[in-house]
Amino acid sequence: MRFRFKQPVPLSLLRPPLPASAFRSLSQHSSFGIAFDIDGVILRGANPIGNSQRALRRLYNDSGSLKIPFLFLTNGGGIPESRRALELSDILGVKILPSQVVQGHSPFKTLLKRYENEFIVATGKGEPDVVMSEYGFKRVVSLDEYASYFSNIDPVAQYKRWTTRQESKCSKNSDKIIHQGYSKKVKAVFVVSDPVDWGRDIQVLCDILTSGGIPGEKSWHQPPLYFAADDLQYQAAFPSERLGMGAFRIALESVFNRIHEKPLELTCFGKPNPLVFRNAETILGHLLQSDVRRGNGDPGPGSPSFKTLYMIGDNPLVDIKGAQQVVDTVEDAVAFILKREDAS
Amino acid sequence: MRFRFKQPVPLSLLRPPLPASAFRSLSQHSSFGIAFDIDGVILRGANPIGNSQRALRRLYNDSGSLKIPFLFLTNGGGIPESRRALELSDILGVKILPSQVVQGHSPFKTLLKRYENEFIVATGKGEPDVVMSEYGFKRVVSLDEYASYFSNIDPVAQYKRWTTRQESKCSKNSDKIIHQGYSKKVKAVFVVSDPVDWGRDIQVLCDILTSGGIPGEKSWHQPPLYFAADDLQYQAAFPSERLGMGAFRIALESVFNRIHEKPLELTCFGKPNPLVFRNAETILGHLLQSDVRRGNGDPGPGSPSFKTLYMIGDNPLVDIKGAQQVVDTVEDAVAFILKREDAS
Repeated sequence: MRFRFKQPVPLSLLRPPLPASAFRSLSQHSSFGIAFDIDGVILRGANPIGNSQRALRRLYNDSGSLKIPFLFLTNGGGIPESRRALELSDILGVKILPSQVVQGHSPFKTLLKRYENEFIVATGKGEPDVVMSEYGFKRVVSLDEYASYFSNIDPVAQYKRWTTRQESKCSKNSDKIIHQGYSKKVKAVFVVSDPVDWGRDIQVLCDILTSGGIPGEKSWHQPPLYFAADDLQYQAAFPSERLGMGAFRIALESVFNRIHEKPLELTCFGKPNPLVFRNAETILGHLLQSDVRRGNGDPGPGSPSFKTLYMIGDNPLVDIKGAQQVVDTVEDAVAFILKREDAS
Repeated sequence: MRFRFKQPVPLSLLRPPLPASAFRSLSQHSSFGIAFDIDGVILRGANPIGNSQRALRRLYNDSGSLKIPFLFLTNGGGIPESRRALELSDILGVKILPSQVVQGHSPFKTLLKRYENEFIVATGKGEPDVVMSEYGFKRVVSLDEYASYFSNIDPVAQYKRWTTRQESKCSKNSDKIIHQGYSKKVKAVFVVSDPVDWGRDIQVLCDILTSGGIPGEKSWHQPPLYFAADDLQYQAAFPSERLGMGAFRIALESVFNRIHEKPLELTCFGKPNPLVFRNAETILGHLLQSDVRRGNGDPGPGSPSFKTLYMIGDNPLVDIKGAQQVVDTVEDAVAFILKREDAS
C-alpha cells in the first residue's frame, strides 16, 4: 500500500513559541520526531504490515531506551490510551507508553473544565464512556445506556437479535429510570469513535439535539456536539476503504437538517487540523525531556524543540497535505528519515 | 392523536377509465370504499387505537360478509401480505384477506417481469427476501446474507452484540462462498422495509452501487435502486415520530454522493404517489366483485366503479394532501363516512 509523507505543515508552525534564548541545540539528542498513523501504515486490523515491528525497533537504542521520539497519531479510538498502548506493545514487540498514543478523542481532555460535572452522552465503538471517565468527566453515559432510559425510542430495536449477553453496566447507574420523559438535560454529545449502530444513534442524537437535551421537548438551543475526527473513509481490513466518522457525520447532518429548522452545529477534532500536529510536537518534546531526565545525556536549560516533525500516513486528505516523498512501506519511510537525518 | 381525511386526489382520477355504457350503478352495493393507514390510525405498535376494532366491525354485515369494501394502505411492510393479514385479523377481531393488505413493497410485484431471474438484493426489517420470493423473484438474497459473503465488509461488525441475520436461512444457500471478490453481479437493490442496521446497509449499498454490482470494482453503471416508500418520519410506539425509510434514503444519498462522482439514482414507491391510490381503487373493485360472486346481491354487467375512495390517515404529507375534515379517532372517521354515504 503506497503512502506519502512530509512535514504536514510549514516548518514554522511546528516550532514551539519559545524565546530564542531558551532554545538550545541538543546535539546528542534527536532534533526530529516521528508521528505514525496506525491503520494502513503500521497495522491492518490487528496485523502488523510494512515490516512495522522492524521499523520501530530502529528508533530504540540497543539498551532499549528510546533513541528517536515517536508517537502514534490516529483519528481512531474507542478505548483509553493506556489500554491501546498495551495492545500496540503486544502486537509490535516494543514498549509503547500511554503518552505515545494520541487518538482522535485525546483532545477531548481539553474540554474537561467545561463539562467535568455536566451530564454528557458519549457514543462510538469500544467504550466511549470509559474513555471519557478516564479523562475525568464525572457524569458521562454511553448512548447505549442513555437510549435504554426510553421505551421504544428505537423503532426497529425488536429486529436486533442479541448474540451476546449484555453487560449489566446499566444496573450500577442509580439514576436509571426506564420511562419516557427522562428529565436530566444532556449538556453535550461526544462522538468518541466510529458509531456502531448508525440508525439508532442518528435517531437518538436527533432526539437529544432538537430538544435542547431532553427528548420530547422542542428547543432552539442545540447542545454542543463534538466529533473526534471527520474521516470520510479509512483503510481497515477490507481491501477498499470503509466509511468513517466523517460519513456518519454527513448522514446525521443531512437527516437532522431535514427535520429541524436550525442547521446542525458541530465541532470536529482530529487530523488534518494543524493543532493536532502542534499537540503531537509538544508530546514528543515531553518524551524527549523524560528521556533526558532518565540520565540519557546532558540536560539542557530549556525545553527541547524539533527542527522537523515527520508524519507517516496513508491518507493524503487527512495525514498529509501535499506529499513530497512517496514510499511503499513504513519500514522504507523510517529508513528514509534516518538516512536523511543521519541518525542511523 | 388527531388526523385528517379526505379524498386524496380529485375525484376524476379515482374513477377507473371505463366507457359510460359499462358503468352500472350497483345500488345494493357500496359505491364507496375506504383505505386505512395502519400506524397511528388503526394501531400503535401492535395495539389497536381509536376504537379501531369497533370501527371495522361496522363495515361488515351481521352475517359476517363484507358490507363496505375496505383495505389497509400502509407504507410499512417487511413480511408477506398473507402473514400481515393474519396478524391484523388476530389483533382486530375481523377476518382480513391478504388482498386487503397493501404494503409499501406490494407494487414491487410489477417489476417481476424485469427481474424474475436476475440476482437481486433486498433489505429491511422483517424478511425482505421472503417478501420478494413470494412475489415470484427467483434469485433474491437479503442484504444480511449478501454481506456475509465478504469478510470484513463491515468494519464495526465485531462491536455488534446483536445481529439482524436469520441464521437458519443462510446455510441453505448453496451459492454462499465466504471470500472476497464474490463475482455474481447484483442487478438491482430493493429497500423493502425500514432498514435495521443503517451503518452496515449504507456501507454495503455504497459498495454495490458504486461498483456496477460487484464490490471492489469501479463502475459508472449504477444498478437500479428501489424504495418501497419515502416517509421522512412516521408514528410508531414512541410518543414523537420516528425516522422512516425516507430518512434512511437521505442518509444513504448524502454519503453516496460524497464518495461517488455520479449522483445516486433511485425510484420511490408508496403514498402519496397517486398511482398507489389508483391501485387501491382497483383492488377495492375486485373485492366488491368477489363479494357479488359470492351471491351477495345482483351481479352487474361490468366492473363496479366507485364514486368515492376515502383515505383515512394521520400523515398529511403522505396520506392526505389538503384535508377537508378533521377527526380524532378512526371510529369517528368511519362514523362520519357511513353517515355521509347513508350506509349505516
